[in-house]
Amino acid sequence: MKRHPAARRVTIQNFTVAETITNWAARIRAGEPRAISRAITAIENSDPRAEDLLRELFPSTGRAYLIGVTGAPGTGKSTLVDKLAAHYRAQGKTVGIIAVDPTSPYTGGAVLGDRIRMQGHAGDSGTFIRSMATRGFFGGLARATADAVLVLDAAGKQVVLVETVGVGQDEIDVVQLAECTLVLVVPGFGDDVQSMKAGLMEVADIFVLNKAEREGADRLEQQLHAMLELAPHRHDGARGWTPPVVRTTAIEGKGIGELAEEIEKFRERREQSGEQREKIQHYWKQRLVLLLEGQVLARALGGDGQRLLESLASEVAQRRKNPYTAVRELLSRAGL
Amino acid sequence: MKRHPAARRVTIQNFTVAETITNWAARIRAGEPRAISRAITAIENSDPRAEDLLRELFPSTGRAYLIGVTGAPGTGKSTLVDKLAAHYRAQGKTVGIIAVDPTSPYTGGAVLGDRIRMQGHAGDSGTFIRSMATRGFFGGLARATADAVLVLDAAGKQVVLVETVGVGQDEIDVVQLAECTLVLVVPGFGDDVQSMKAGLMEVADIFVLNKAEREGADRLEQQLHAMLELAPHRHDGARGWTPPVVRTTAIEGKGIGELAEEIEKFRERREQSGEQREKIQHYWKQRLVLLLEGQVLARALGGDGQRLLESLASEVAQRRKNPYTAVRELLSRAGL
Repeated sequence: MKRHPAARRVTIQNFTVAETITNWAARIRAGEPRAISRAITAIENSDPRAEDLLRELFPSTGRAYLIGVTGAPGTGKSTLVDKLAAHYRAQGKTVGIIAVDPTSPYTGGAVLGDRIRMQGHAGDSGTFIRSMATRGFFGGLARATADAVLVLDAAGKQVVLVETVGVGQDEIDVVQLAECTLVLVVPGFGDDVQSMKAGLMEVADIFVLNKAEREGADRLEQQLHAMLELAPHRHDGARGWTPPVVRTTAIEGKGIGELAEEIEKFRERREQSGEQREKIQHYWKQRLVLLLEGQVLARALGGDGQRLLESLASEVAQRRKNPYTAVRELLSRAGL
Repeated sequence: MKRHPAARRVTIQNFTVAETITNWAARIRAGEPRAISRAITAIENSDPRAEDLLRELFPSTGRAYLIGVTGAPGTGKSTLVDKLAAHYRAQGKTVGIIAVDPTSPYTGGAVLGDRIRMQGHAGDSGTFIRSMATRGFFGGLARATADAVLVLDAAGKQVVLVETVGVGQDEIDVVQLAECTLVLVVPGFGDDVQSMKAGLMEVADIFVLNKAEREGADRLEQQLHAMLELAPHRHDGARGWTPPVVRTTAIEGKGIGELAEEIEKFRERREQSGEQREKIQHYWKQRLVLLLEGQVLARALGGDGQRLLESLASEVAQRRKNPYTAVRELLSRAGL
């Protein structure tokens, strides 16, 4: 076997083998959970092999249907995603789940959470669950999530669910990359619709009114419809599509079938109208910009670039150098 | 008067005058609200003159104390900021306020909001209030806010308050740029501390328990203290500083004096320990990265770069081109 320049030594069950990128990619395409998981770790760590791997996997992508699930903390996203995954599995579809979990010393272990959730899908090789933590900042989250989705896509997952807590722009950027975005709302949560106004409402293709057995569900549904009537024009998304409101009680599995039907309706409508193509075009525009930024940062700040950044920051902080002059030095380091 | 290359014609009270960047900067340094406001508009619109202007203003900056104010919608941020501003004004300090308002077709006019808020400071030339909308994406908000703060700093505002709704990373990035960050919490809001976990708690230098007359305030304060005891190590910020919890009823002006004292205590402590210098160093590192990204995007996508991006996105979407190859084309357009 010819060694790829990026060949690395990995230990698998006490054997040390030289693994090429080609080999790694082949194992991902075969759906091997360990190979998939390691790829996502490489993406999270900005491991330079991740790019080689993604380049290799890219031609095998473009088949998964990507569903974004967002909502305030406490709206029941994980439960809904698990039930929806089980629904698709029962239809014989393979499913990938990425739970975007902003790093927080208060929330603790994403890994533990994965283990607990995996138990719900125990022994099912058709479901892959993985949490991703927020590392870095300014678009890093959306970048890493999108790359992880490509890996699951190449691994043959037919449905990929990305769940993220959402109020801020960065989380919204994550779900905007999805082909269908579900926004979860629950009754009795602060000021209801008022408390969700910051950019979240506009990205919904479908509203999921979860915990629908709670008091206030009818009022919340009315509020949502009233709001949708007032603002029929959305930033982006399906023209003339008014997001339906689907009532669920995810913990009991209620309403999951109806939700899957609405998702399917939305998908068909988009495909027939040609909007799906536009959406994918838009997706790649955004992705290319993210990739561009990532590459430039790697070039400008790789190696001892961090040291240069430190010293420039210090000069600027002391007003001994103008920030615009400092940036020009960084640009020239990146070859610009 | 020698014309600056970036000279432009502006209409001021029916006179048309050629205004140079130097002139504009001088008017900002003199604190002229119209000149300040126009500078922030230029920043929001990514007007190329904004950079020339900021370069000119930069040596006059570094004096303002920047306070970030964040919290979920409905926690009373605007009211608190207004009262805190009035408190500083009563001490003879000049104040600038930037309200970061993520664009939403549901929320409507930021401008109207400014007018209403200005009435509270009517006739006071020592206070400047301005809303900024979220434009663009991936770090654009933090970039624009930081530049607007520089303008207010150059305009001689001694205290600059930046308020933003905060749960997401992008809003958190905005307040992380502040020297002192206040996180507002209110009793009876969803799952209380649980519902704020996503990255917001870690950025607090001071917790403001607003609407403290409401039921549940004691319980919330206990929760906050319990949480702070469990997690004494913060991402960033003052070492060994446990964020105090200050109770306020902002709408009645209660607790504002105590809050200002805690802010002052925090400022003094940071300055004496040398952490303030570290914080500013860290600030400029982040800022330089943001500026670098902004410059690269301008070069790669300026002119007909958008057309190139469209066509590359289309090829990638059809799997006729690998995204990494496409990015290399964009990089070469940027001169990389």
